[in-house]
Amino acid sequence: MDLVERFPANPLLSPRDVPPSRPGWVVECLLNPGAFRFGGRTCLLMRVAERPVQEEGWLSTPVVDETTPDGTRVLRFRKDDPKLAYNDPRVFHYDGAMYLTTLSHLRLATSDDGVKFRCDGKPLLEGRGPLETFGIEDCRVTQIGADYHLTYTAVSADGHGVSLKSTRDWKGFEDHGMVLPPPNKDCTLFDSKVGGNYACLHRPSPSGLGGSFIWYAESPDLVHWGGHRCVARPRPGMWDSSRIGAGAAPIKTGRGWLCLYHGADGKNRYCLGAMLLDLAEPWKVLARSVEPFMEPVTDYERKGFFGEVVFTNGHVVDGETVTIYFGASDTVICGCRTSVPQILSTLA
Amino acid sequence: MDLVERFPANPLLSPRDVPPSRPGWVVECLLNPGAFRFGGRTCLLMRVAERPVQEEGWLSTPVVDETTPDGTRVLRFRKDDPKLAYNDPRVFHYDGAMYLTTLSHLRLATSDDGVKFRCDGKPLLEGRGPLETFGIEDCRVTQIGADYHLTYTAVSADGHGVSLKSTRDWKGFEDHGMVLPPPNKDCTLFDSKVGGNYACLHRPSPSGLGGSFIWYAESPDLVHWGGHRCVARPRPGMWDSSRIGAGAAPIKTGRGWLCLYHGADGKNRYCLGAMLLDLAEPWKVLARSVEPFMEPVTDYERKGFFGEVVFTNGHVVDGETVTIYFGASDTVICGCRTSVPQILSTLA
Repeated sequence: MDLVERFPANPLLSPRDVPPSRPGWVVECLLNPGAFRFGGRTCLLMRVAERPVQEEGWLSTPVVDETTPDGTRVLRFRKDDPKLAYNDPRVFHYDGAMYLTTLSHLRLATSDDGVKFRCDGKPLLEGRGPLETFGIEDCRVTQIGADYHLTYTAVSADGHGVSLKSTRDWKGFEDHGMVLPPPNKDCTLFDSKVGGNYACLHRPSPSGLGGSFIWYAESPDLVHWGGHRCVARPRPGMWDSSRIGAGAAPIKTGRGWLCLYHGADGKNRYCLGAMLLDLAEPWKVLARSVEPFMEPVTDYERKGFFGEVVFTNGHVVDGETVTIYFGASDTVICGCRTSVPQILSTLA
Repeated sequence: MDLVERFPANPLLSPRDVPPSRPGWVVECLLNPGAFRFGGRTCLLMRVAERPVQEEGWLSTPVVDETTPDGTRVLRFRKDDPKLAYNDPRVFHYDGAMYLTTLSHLRLATSDDGVKFRCDGKPLLEGRGPLETFGIEDCRVTQIGADYHLTYTAVSADGHGVSLKSTRDWKGFEDHGMVLPPPNKDCTLFDSKVGGNYACLHRPSPSGLGGSFIWYAESPDLVHWGGHRCVARPRPGMWDSSRIGAGAAPIKTGRGWLCLYHGADGKNRYCLGAMLLDLAEPWKVLARSVEPFMEPVTDYERKGFFGEVVFTNGHVVDGETVTIYFGASDTVICGCRTSVPQILSTLA
C-alpha cells in the first residue's frame, strides 16, 4: 500500500552524475541524503560511496589516512587469500577484522525546483580524525533557528557512532566530535526543544540483550546527551521485524511528533513507515504504521548495489506536504511526495 | 606475576553472608563491589545475584515487575522445552530472546577496618523502571566533593546501558536516568574535572566494527555526555586479547591518571592490569601493563559460578596505598593491597 507519489523524474541522481573525488576511483553508490532548504533552494547532502576501479583478482578499498598527500590510502587484498572473506557487497573481513568495500563522503546537490538537482564537483565533507577513517555516512540535517546541525555516522575500526557538525553558511563547519558512541547511527535531532532540552532519536544496535531499536535522548547543548529511553522495537512477523531507525527530524503536528522511519525484515527488505510520538513525552508511541506507507516496488528500488531498499533520512515540509528524498537500492537518489494527514490516517 | 598482597581473610564476603531479598530465593553470587569511604568507614556496594530455589526439571529466573506486591515476577521454563537454550551459567535464550539466570540488586556492606564487613539485611537499590527490569549490576562509586555518584549497569530486554544516581547521605538518591545507551557498561567517573568538564571512562561493545574497547567521554553536568573518544583496545595474543573495561575512578598521580582495568582473553579468563593516561588528555595512553598485575590463582578465584575471574570496580586510596576490592569467580568478594609506585613500575 504505497501512499506516496514518486517523482516521474526518478532517479533524480545516479552515480554517473557525480564525478569521483580522486582519479582512478569510481562512484559505486549514491545513498541516503539529508535534505534542507538554504538560500531559497532545496539541497541534498548525499552520501557518496567510492572505491578504486577494481582489478581482476583483487579487492581494494580506500581508507582515510591524513598522512598521505591526498588524505587516503588504498588497501589491496588478493581474492584468493585464505584470510579474506567476502559475501556481502557492503563489507568484508580480513584476518578477522571487518572493512567496508567503499569509502563514503558527503556531497552537496542543489535544486531550484526540488526535482532537478545539480551536484557539486567535489566532496563537501570527508572523514577526518581517528573515528572517521572508514568514512562518514547518512547525514541528517536539522535546522534550528539560523543554524543547521548535521548528525552523521562516523565509521572506523573502532565502530560506527554518531558525530555532529554545525554550520550557518554551509562554508564553515563547527566540529562537535562524537556525540553518541558505537554502535549507533540513524540519529536525528528534533527541530525544537522538548521540555526545555534539545532532543534526538537514535539507534543503538546491541547484540545479545536488546537490538536495533529506536531510542530517545535529551541534551542541554546538542553536544552532550543523556536521559536515554527506548522508544520502539521491531515487531516479529511484520515488515519491520528485524531493524528500525528514524528518518529525518520528526514533524510537529497537533496530534504529536510524526516520525518517519525505516524498517527491515529478516530478508533485509527496507520499507518506510511512521510513528506518532507524544508531544510532551516523545518516547511514548501513540500510533504506528501497521503496513509500510512505502515499499520497494519500482525497478530502481528493487535492483542495485543492495536491492529491495527504500531508505530516507531527508525530507522537506511545506504546510501539509512532505517531500521525501530517499535512497533506492543503495544506488540512486529519488524523491516522492505525500502529506501529513495522509500518513496520519494510516496509523493505528 | 602478582603484585598484590591478598587479604588472609579472603573471601571477605560470600553468598552465605547475605540474606536473600525474598522468601524462597537463593543468593547465588556476590559480585564486583563499588568501594568508598563514608562516615569513617569503608563501604562496599555489592552486586547480589539471586534467583528462586531451582526445581528439578525447571529453569526459573526473576524479573522486576512493579505491578506485583513484591515488585518482581518469576519466569519459569521447562528444561525440556525445545525453545529453551542454556549453556552459559549467566544467560539463557528462550524463543530467540535472551534472559539472565539471576536478578541482581545492589547491597551495602560496611567495615571499620576494611577487612571485616557487615552486610545489610536488605537491598539498598533495586531495579526500577523499564530499563532495569533485568536488574542493576557492577556499580562504581565516585566521590566528588561531598557527593557520591553511582554509575551502574542497568539491564533489561532493551539492552544493558549505564545509569547514574547521586547521593550525599546514602539515604536519599537522585536518579539521573540512563546516561550511556546500550550496549555499554564498566563506566567510571573521574573524581575531578579534566579541562573544565567532568570525565568518564566507559565500555561500549559493538559487534562487527569495533569491540569491547575502553572509551573516554566528557560532560558539563555528569548527566549528559559527549566528546567520545576511543582510549584502548584489546591486544591480540595477550592476556587482554578479547575484552577490556575500566575499574573504579582513575587515580591521579604526578605522571598521569592511573587506571586499573580488567582484561579477558579468548578463554574468558579475567585478569587485572593498568594504564597510565595523560593528565590533560586522558584519552591518550602513556603506558600499559604488558603482563597483568593480578591473575586468578587462588582456589576462590579459579572456581565458582564463573571461574578464572578476578574483576574490580572498587578501590580506596590512602596515600600511595591502594586497597582493591574485587570479585572472584563471580561468587565471592575479596580484598588485596598494592601501591601506586609498584603498579607504575610495571607499566611499559
